[in-house]
Amino acid sequence: MKDVSAQDLKDNLPLVSVDGKNTFTTVKVKDVEISRNTFTVMAGPCAVESLSQIIEIAGEVKKRGALVLRGGAFKPLTFPYRSDSFYELREEGLEYLNEARKIHGIPVVTELMDIKYLDKICECADMIQIGSRNMQNFPLLEEVAKTGFPILLKRHFGCSLRDWLGAAEYILYNGNNNVVLCERGISSSHTHRVTSRFIVDLQVVPAAQELSHLPIIVDPSHSTFRRQFVTPVARAACAIGSDGILIDVHPNPSKAAVDPLNAITFDVFEKLMSDLSIISKLIGKKIK
Amino acid sequence: MKDVSAQDLKDNLPLVSVDGKNTFTTVKVKDVEISRNTFTVMAGPCAVESLSQIIEIAGEVKKRGALVLRGGAFKPLTFPYRSDSFYELREEGLEYLNEARKIHGIPVVTELMDIKYLDKICECADMIQIGSRNMQNFPLLEEVAKTGFPILLKRHFGCSLRDWLGAAEYILYNGNNNVVLCERGISSSHTHRVTSRFIVDLQVVPAAQELSHLPIIVDPSHSTFRRQFVTPVARAACAIGSDGILIDVHPNPSKAAVDPLNAITFDVFEKLMSDLSIISKLIGKKIK
Amino acid sequence: MKDVSAQDLKDNLPLVSVDGKNTFTTVKVKDVEISRNTFTVMAGPCAVESLSQIIEIAGEVKKRGALVLRGGAFKPLTFPYRSDSFYELREEGLEYLNEARKIHGIPVVTELMDIKYLDKICECADMIQIGSRNMQNFPLLEEVAKTGFPILLKRHFGCSLRDWLGAAEYILYNGNNNVVLCERGISSSHTHRVTSRFIVDLQVVPAAQELSHLPIIVDPSHSTFRRQFVTPVARAACAIGSDGILIDVHPNPSKAAVDPLNAITFDVFEKLMSDLSIISKLIGKKIK
Amino acid sequence: MKDVSAQDLKDNLPLVSVDGKNTFTTVKVKDVEISRNTFTVMAGPCAVESLSQIIEIAGEVKKRGALVLRGGAFKPLTFPYRSDSFYELREEGLEYLNEARKIHGIPVVTELMDIKYLDKICECADMIQIGSRNMQNFPLLEEVAKTGFPILLKRHFGCSLRDWLGAAEYILYNGNNNVVLCERGISSSHTHRVTSRFIVDLQVVPAAQELSHLPIIVDPSHSTFRRQFVTPVARAACAIGSDGILIDVHPNPSKAAVDPLNAITFDVFEKLMSDLSIISKLIGKKIK
Repeated sequence: MKDVSAQDLKDNLPLVSVDGKNTFTTVKVKDVEISRNTFTVMAGPCAVESLSQIIEIAGEVKKRGALVLRGGAFKPLTFPYRSDSFYELREEGLEYLNEARKIHGIPVVTELMDIKYLDKICECADMIQIGSRNMQNFPLLEEVAKTGFPILLKRHFGCSLRDWLGAAEYILYNGNNNVVLCERGISSSHTHRVTSRFIVDLQVVPAAQELSHLPIIVDPSHSTFRRQFVTPVARAACAIGSDGILIDVHPNPSKAAVDPLNAITFDVFEKLMSDLSIISKLIGKKIK
Repeated sequence: MKDVSAQDLKDNLPLVSVDGKNTFTTVKVKDVEISRNTFTVMAGPCAVESLSQIIEIAGEVKKRGALVLRGGAFKPLTFPYRSDSFYELREEGLEYLNEARKIHGIPVVTELMDIKYLDKICECADMIQIGSRNMQNFPLLEEVAKTGFPILLKRHFGCSLRDWLGAAEYILYNGNNNVVLCERGISSSHTHRVTSRFIVDLQVVPAAQELSHLPIIVDPSHSTFRRQFVTPVARAACAIGSDGILIDVHPNPSKAAVDPLNAITFDVFEKLMSDLSIISKLIGKKIK
Repeated sequence: MKDVSAQDLKDNLPLVSVDGKNTFTTVKVKDVEISRNTFTVMAGPCAVESLSQIIEIAGEVKKRGALVLRGGAFKPLTFPYRSDSFYELREEGLEYLNEARKIHGIPVVTELMDIKYLDKICECADMIQIGSRNMQNFPLLEEVAKTGFPILLKRHFGCSLRDWLGAAEYILYNGNNNVVLCERGISSSHTHRVTSRFIVDLQVVPAAQELSHLPIIVDPSHSTFRRQFVTPVARAACAIGSDGILIDVHPNPSKAAVDPLNAITFDVFEKLMSDLSIISKLIGKKIK
Repeated sequence: MKDVSAQDLKDNLPLVSVDGKNTFTTVKVKDVEISRNTFTVMAGPCAVESLSQIIEIAGEVKKRGALVLRGGAFKPLTFPYRSDSFYELREEGLEYLNEARKIHGIPVVTELMDIKYLDKICECADMIQIGSRNMQNFPLLEEVAKTGFPILLKRHFGCSLRDWLGAAEYILYNGNNNVVLCERGISSSHTHRVTSRFIVDLQVVPAAQELSHLPIIVDPSHSTFRRQFVTPVARAACAIGSDGILIDVHPNPSKAAVDPLNAITFDVFEKLMSDLSIISKLIGKKIK
């Protein structure tokens, strides 16, 4: 059964569930506090492309209100092949992120797929992202949990909230409470067009907040995979009460090395930040 | 294939698709204009319960900014049985709606399931709702289309956007352009709790608006089936750019004859209307 | 909640549920008995195309072991448009079915979409099919139930077993126990190719047989929508214990007026019948 | 887009796709040949519980026609907690499997979750199972591929055929062609009861066989999670043309340490093998 009953919660999710006192977790990424009282914007390119690129973007998104820099050094794909324009910088990418955060004083979140890069990522980043496909890679979750680093746990596109909270429970069970959930789209038989493989499940935000004390944010870029939907979905994620967003921003979206269909420009991001300020204020959340 | 390609649109949805000039439809329900420039709130009880009830609610929701009164005289259920507390007023209910709209000067939307009540509904209501289960009841769509009445076409919980626009195409093909789409939740293997059978697909709003010139609104009450989620989903529906909402409001929600789990009180509705005013202004839509 | 619990069954599906004595229903279509002890093959074209066509096919499928002739006089489609090669014969088609059954002495099943053709269909057919899209068209179910005719109730592609049994309950509640369930594919986010919009849910066969006393058959043609899958799925439907199949057979499948992608030839049908004889014998079911 | 188009295949799945010559892969697990011409039964307990248990079961399933012994030493669960009756024997379990295969001369398939047990599993087993949750754990796939061992690649319950074949492509791309696909149920909004979380997608068998040269088998135990459905689904898997099954067999199913709801007894297994012999012969496949 997919549904989460009260008894099921008590039995299976004792650490992740809200307690009677409704004490909600604040996850700190350096000085940034992600919680039920804040709306945290994490922005940057899908993939780190060069040192100059990530330094430029770090400065531009920070200036517009992003509190955390995102950027992938590793990019898992459905198939093993990479087009000529696509590249992963891997360890080099991690080092560039490290440079960018030093220069701009902005903490970094980036994905870890392979345990062998754990030490390196701990040197270069401030929050470790577990990607959708590894949500239930329990050995990976356990090792990452033990570092004590804050963890951004993306939801698998084929998993229920119950499965997802179960994965978070593994992390807390291994002694690390610094978990932020991130919705990034679910597979559906009701998708809309060729370019949208998933639909974003915004309703999971109040559903998760009712069951768990962990913060939850939304990725409007990878859930919709369509630039035109990113801004409206980001506004809706804020209006529904999520604790932040993780968003692809790129100086020249159509030239982005990875996922050129969903990144937005600095200008669009700036306008979006203005909207998000108004909406987050409306629902009582601090945006910076 | 579920996805809507350009050629598919051209071949199958010539009337419903946006044309090159991006002329969007304005559907008029009496004096109320539902369009890409407005955010229209339709509110009222799930079911008409008595003459005094519907008159009271009509006044209260109008006072708080609703422009259309909703209320069901017919309530299809999955099973043929009705609990003691549940009742359908059927033709009597239609007459009560008629009274309420006369007294308060607010237009009425209500559901038609059975063609034999078509004349009666045309006497008593201003907009005819086609329920989720009848979305592809093509003989019903054709007969209703021919009345020229504005039609609120709810999406079936198991249908794609392509299926839904196909149903709208039947209505336009029968000479009636006054169609408003209404998202009311889709079945998903990713649902969250026992009491939420569906998840709301908010992403369908920008997806439909990109493909079609028809207005689209969201029903946050029946899509979530959980009072706690109604307000956040309604705010998100506005923030994502929908052209309105259809919402259950009841003086005493837990005593509502039908769907007591999702109605909100007048007070909660009032606070919601205040939020919606701010958000709709933010995105350039007139709320009244 | 989609799942069917014991209490839910008792409350909502008293007529459709198996009772303690495990008495299973036998539905009679003329002399043909559809039950837990038989495997009934219903075969014919997707659409009736001409008098000579339906007479030929009736003879050919009967000769190879089909006990019921299928053929559509009405064909609902997602969109209102028909290609030049597609046509519905409507009342004329019903009359041709009537001729074919008289000549070959084989009972006929055909779909009713619109209540206004009810009398006509009762004159020309022996079993009334409720199509997928009308599974929850309750006024239609009630009127059809009252005729006392055996009913073939197709599952909506977006509905759970619980929804489906609920629709059957409406028929029994209106005094007609002669219901045969027909699985015809469900929408899924896991579909396989452009030409397969649905996947067939064969597991619903033992699931329905455990909960209900009604017979259940499978449509391998419309669930897969791909000729290459029809024969394997038909064999699997038999092996899993279904009480029959409803299958598209056409003398020249690629020229079929409707659904040319899924019909099989007389020769392929003959080989399939031979396989089905062996499998049905293996699991203790009489095939003719 | 989920659907697999011809161009998509050519671009993304060059190694996994069928070529023009329709040469199908035969995967050898010791002397057992898994291919389009055979129907291979892999049977055993869900979890290895003791040395004597696995030795007994190995002998009993071999005697009844199983050609490969299954048994889990590692059992991933949705939550980190284990009931008292549940245990994983981990490395000890691998050693017991090693003993059982030596005594009975039957090859062993078992799951690897954590790369650190790779050497140990290579000593004790003949085929490495990648579990559903790790289907897209690409670092794991790459390491396992490099061993050259035959790999049983289970489908993730939330993934399409395209995603699944993409995971297989990673293995072939790393130089290992010995891949057998295993369907084990997909999440669906159409599930039937509390105890069935998934539905088995049998249609994926002909779909995969049309696109790929790799063998594909079905797990009727974990896909249905309900003993009563296992035998019918196993028969259907054979009748639809799958290249084998992976099935839970236990001397005392209700006492099984893991998944007591889906194991079948030796007697039921014996009767099933008799049915499978007849069906596999019917469709031209060698069962042993």
